[in-house]
Amino acid sequence: MKKIGIIGGIGPASTVEYYNRIISEYRKISNDENYPQLFINSVNMTEMLGYLSANDNDNLVNMLVKEIEKLIVIGADYIAIASNTPHCVINEVIEKANIPIISIVDETCKYVKSKKIKKVLLTGTRFTMDRDFYSKALKKYDIECIVPNDNEKDIIHEIIFPDLENGIIVEKSKVIFKEICNKIIKSENADGILLACTELPLMIKENDFEITVVDTMEIHIKSILEKI
Amino acid sequence: MKKIGIIGGIGPASTVEYYNRIISEYRKISNDENYPQLFINSVNMTEMLGYLSANDNDNLVNMLVKEIEKLIVIGADYIAIASNTPHCVINEVIEKANIPIISIVDETCKYVKSKKIKKVLLTGTRFTMDRDFYSKALKKYDIECIVPNDNEKDIIHEIIFPDLENGIIVEKSKVIFKEICNKIIKSENADGILLACTELPLMIKENDFEITVVDTMEIHIKSILEKI
Repeated sequence: MKKIGIIGGIGPASTVEYYNRIISEYRKISNDENYPQLFINSVNMTEMLGYLSANDNDNLVNMLVKEIEKLIVIGADYIAIASNTPHCVINEVIEKANIPIISIVDETCKYVKSKKIKKVLLTGTRFTMDRDFYSKALKKYDIECIVPNDNEKDIIHEIIFPDLENGIIVEKSKVIFKEICNKIIKSENADGILLACTELPLMIKENDFEITVVDTMEIHIKSILEKI
Repeated sequence: MKKIGIIGGIGPASTVEYYNRIISEYRKISNDENYPQLFINSVNMTEMLGYLSANDNDNLVNMLVKEIEKLIVIGADYIAIASNTPHCVINEVIEKANIPIISIVDETCKYVKSKKIKKVLLTGTRFTMDRDFYSKALKKYDIECIVPNDNEKDIIHEIIFPDLENGIIVEKSKVIFKEICNKIIKSENADGILLACTELPLMIKENDFEITVVDTMEIHIKSILEKI
């Protein structure tokens, strides 16, 4: 059994989802009575958000690599960062860290391709929607990526922070989120919606939209389980 | 801010409780915007239970010390084992591990003393009720410790495993647990009940008994927060 090291705390609610689902899914699909050993390094989200807000990629990469190295030292075989947002620097982190990293972006792109989706609406934190790491990665798979406009980005970001990030689901936020997305989906003729924030699936489920809902956390967790 | 290293996974449900409550309580009581960095080493519960069932204290101590050392290497300032059961060897672990360990047993004894409780009913897993680590520790504080009889221990243990351990609360189990405890409390004239299993508070709350309910997990978490 391989050991996964998780960079968590960004935010805590989705770290718990990863932890619970990795253990319960492992126990469902494995034939043994064991529990997978997991290492979680739950970092100070405020520090990380500071680097993101300041567009300070260097310090963001350094922080992630330093925290990943701790998990390497204690025996992790693979690393997963339990959040989409810090994946804006995943290529630099992969280059510097001396361990295989299961990237939520790569795994999501492969999944979207397998579903034959041509045009996805990207939703997530302001950082994820502003940066081009998803659109660049999707482009390599010939998938077009559309993002909400500035005003819509603000509203979606504020639905995630601080409520969803702290595990609080507000019914009115769900209605607003769906309204914004449905408007874009219709006008842009999108055939997939990417929940590219590990907290969004706490609020939005598969049947909340008529087109394919891509739960990046679920895809990530499945890939992690395969490695274990 | 001090860093806590948690030995978790025994079981996963209470590890999540510790994690969620440490972070949310910290954010409630602190004046800063930070999140505390936490390290969790979630071990294979099946391996640990094997040593407990076989009364193999040496291997149990070795396993715990080995896993604690990983948390030391990556910068933990204090260790907490997020489970009562392995505390049966806490003195040996404290002796061998080169780091301060926040013991749920010690913290609970201090709390029970502060509440002027004279006679407590101990409930927990079969292992915790069979072994004398709680009664010995309580005796140092002049507190008498009573335990259920063999048949009652079996029933209480089976309420914890596997349901509560996996976060599943069965209403009927709660009724049975209360019946058994109330019978003992009455006949023994106990003035406190110890929920000495980090899963029991998921099912039993403070007002479920007329005497003082001692939630060992809550006491442990408060002590951890003080150290942070």
